[in-house]
Amino acid sequence: MKKILLAHGGGGQEMNELINGLIFRIFDNEILAQGNDSAILNLSGKIAFSTDSFVVSPTKFPGGDIGKIAVCGTINDLAMVGAKPRYISCALIIEEGLGIDELKEILNSMKSTADEAGASIVCGDTKVVSKGSCDKIFINTSGIGEIIKESRVENLKSGAKILLSGDVGRHGAVILANRNELNLDLQSDCKPLNNVVEALLNASIAPLAMRDATRGGLSAVLNEWAKACGRDIKISEESIAVSDEVMGICEILGFEPYELANEGTFVLAIDPKDEIKALEILREFDSSANTIGEILDSNKGNVIIQNSYGASRFMEPPKGELLPRIC
Amino acid sequence: MKKILLAHGGGGQEMNELINGLIFRIFDNEILAQGNDSAILNLSGKIAFSTDSFVVSPTKFPGGDIGKIAVCGTINDLAMVGAKPRYISCALIIEEGLGIDELKEILNSMKSTADEAGASIVCGDTKVVSKGSCDKIFINTSGIGEIIKESRVENLKSGAKILLSGDVGRHGAVILANRNELNLDLQSDCKPLNNVVEALLNASIAPLAMRDATRGGLSAVLNEWAKACGRDIKISEESIAVSDEVMGICEILGFEPYELANEGTFVLAIDPKDEIKALEILREFDSSANTIGEILDSNKGNVIIQNSYGASRFMEPPKGELLPRIC
Repeated sequence: MKKILLAHGGGGQEMNELINGLIFRIFDNEILAQGNDSAILNLSGKIAFSTDSFVVSPTKFPGGDIGKIAVCGTINDLAMVGAKPRYISCALIIEEGLGIDELKEILNSMKSTADEAGASIVCGDTKVVSKGSCDKIFINTSGIGEIIKESRVENLKSGAKILLSGDVGRHGAVILANRNELNLDLQSDCKPLNNVVEALLNASIAPLAMRDATRGGLSAVLNEWAKACGRDIKISEESIAVSDEVMGICEILGFEPYELANEGTFVLAIDPKDEIKALEILREFDSSANTIGEILDSNKGNVIIQNSYGASRFMEPPKGELLPRIC
Repeated sequence: MKKILLAHGGGGQEMNELINGLIFRIFDNEILAQGNDSAILNLSGKIAFSTDSFVVSPTKFPGGDIGKIAVCGTINDLAMVGAKPRYISCALIIEEGLGIDELKEILNSMKSTADEAGASIVCGDTKVVSKGSCDKIFINTSGIGEIIKESRVENLKSGAKILLSGDVGRHGAVILANRNELNLDLQSDCKPLNNVVEALLNASIAPLAMRDATRGGLSAVLNEWAKACGRDIKISEESIAVSDEVMGICEILGFEPYELANEGTFVLAIDPKDEIKALEILREFDSSANTIGEILDSNKGNVIIQNSYGASRFMEPPKGELLPRIC
């Protein structure tokens, strides 16, 4: 099996062969093929710009791999501000010795995820570091999207309904299970969210704010929002979908499902008048979507979670090590 | 001295403190402060989009550090297509244990370089990996610029003059000297090039193509251009400025100065009618700028270098390992 050598990052003939012979062929589009230092794009109106580096370990997990998550991450950041993702960059940091076949699989996974989201990978960069200077492969993607209808944290207001697009904790649980050699029938939720967001916007539903619940999970998003708008958020625990497998692994390993990372599940703040219609659309994509709470008038900036017996507690912001290299 | 912990990348409270308390304070701008998943920007017309990851070792070298080079790299890629750099992203992959003071220095260096280039750092991402999973810090920057006058490889044509904006090989030589513990009075050429490019464009000089001579050096650029336009390029060896220090280190270690990386020196293809004026402007920024050759009619795609005695040889495209982690 052929492997990546330091020479593949040297700027010489071997790098050209890797880029032109492999990377450009897989990503295959006209803008990339122009071979300039920057991609030249035509865009109009307001645009969204986002970046994310991915260091997930293992690089392959049930439901995805580092290539898929790298494209989803940036696609979703763009979708969350109400933008249609258009252009993605791909910067690779590869450890000397990575198999070319493994690289090919990761690149193919990036390409098919970008296709699914309707975006093109238009510029890139490749660095190779010596054995031991990184762990297999790190990928950065940045992205540009066209704003359809701006959705932003500043819009949060009391009375808004809090909706969740699916069940929580699956990506985190999959990585946890893998690291602890537990065999679970569970897939990461890793997927592009722009299609469901566009379905909402096309139905004239403009979420006040949206946020995909990645590192720090649902708990991080809700606490950030409560702090940002200076209001309390009240959540009903039984309305949050958590699969039995995720609940099980949390009980075994002592994690909180609301703090586990998701890679294709998002939180929305919706004007109450749009709640029913928004829920209907979300459920076309994922039947476990639900309204989980609302923003209150009270202004302590806390997240309060109430269980099925009516008892309340604070949902604390996540703290400490959590789970390194989850994405 | 305080150090970066895995918790700083976990998505919880420690990460918020690092981002809000340190990173946002240093980069300090309104777009970043909005705290959405993506930066929301107003741009018009054609835009340029570029990405680069930086893994340079050592992270600090005479004339710069990984923060400066990370901003210059993307600024220069944008400038090379004739764009005015506007917005930069900053994605950090940090090894657990990096000193907070060292990180602060790198971030300050990014900020001052972005300021020098008139660009803002508007979005970012921070990942922390465990000790041994990366080497200190890797930085990705992506950037967006507004095209002033498009400059692209497709424009190359026979008769065009080839100009060089300064002396070559300094960045590569500085890194080489450091790794071989040679003490030289030499600084990397690392600097933003958008100001000199804008001076050319403001004087109505539109270079046919421009390329900063990074990995693979002058030799990589010229060979890529010769191949892209399918013409031969003839270069006069004595017209290429190389400092005594760079020449010395090349002789000691067996390198070719034309294959050493530069981080603030670029090659231009210019219509002959613009040559004198372009040279005048380039020399306002660097007195060693010079015309070094021209694109011929002959169509073998070779680069031919002629020495002061009139003897010619091919300037071969660089090959092999060259110098890993130069940028």
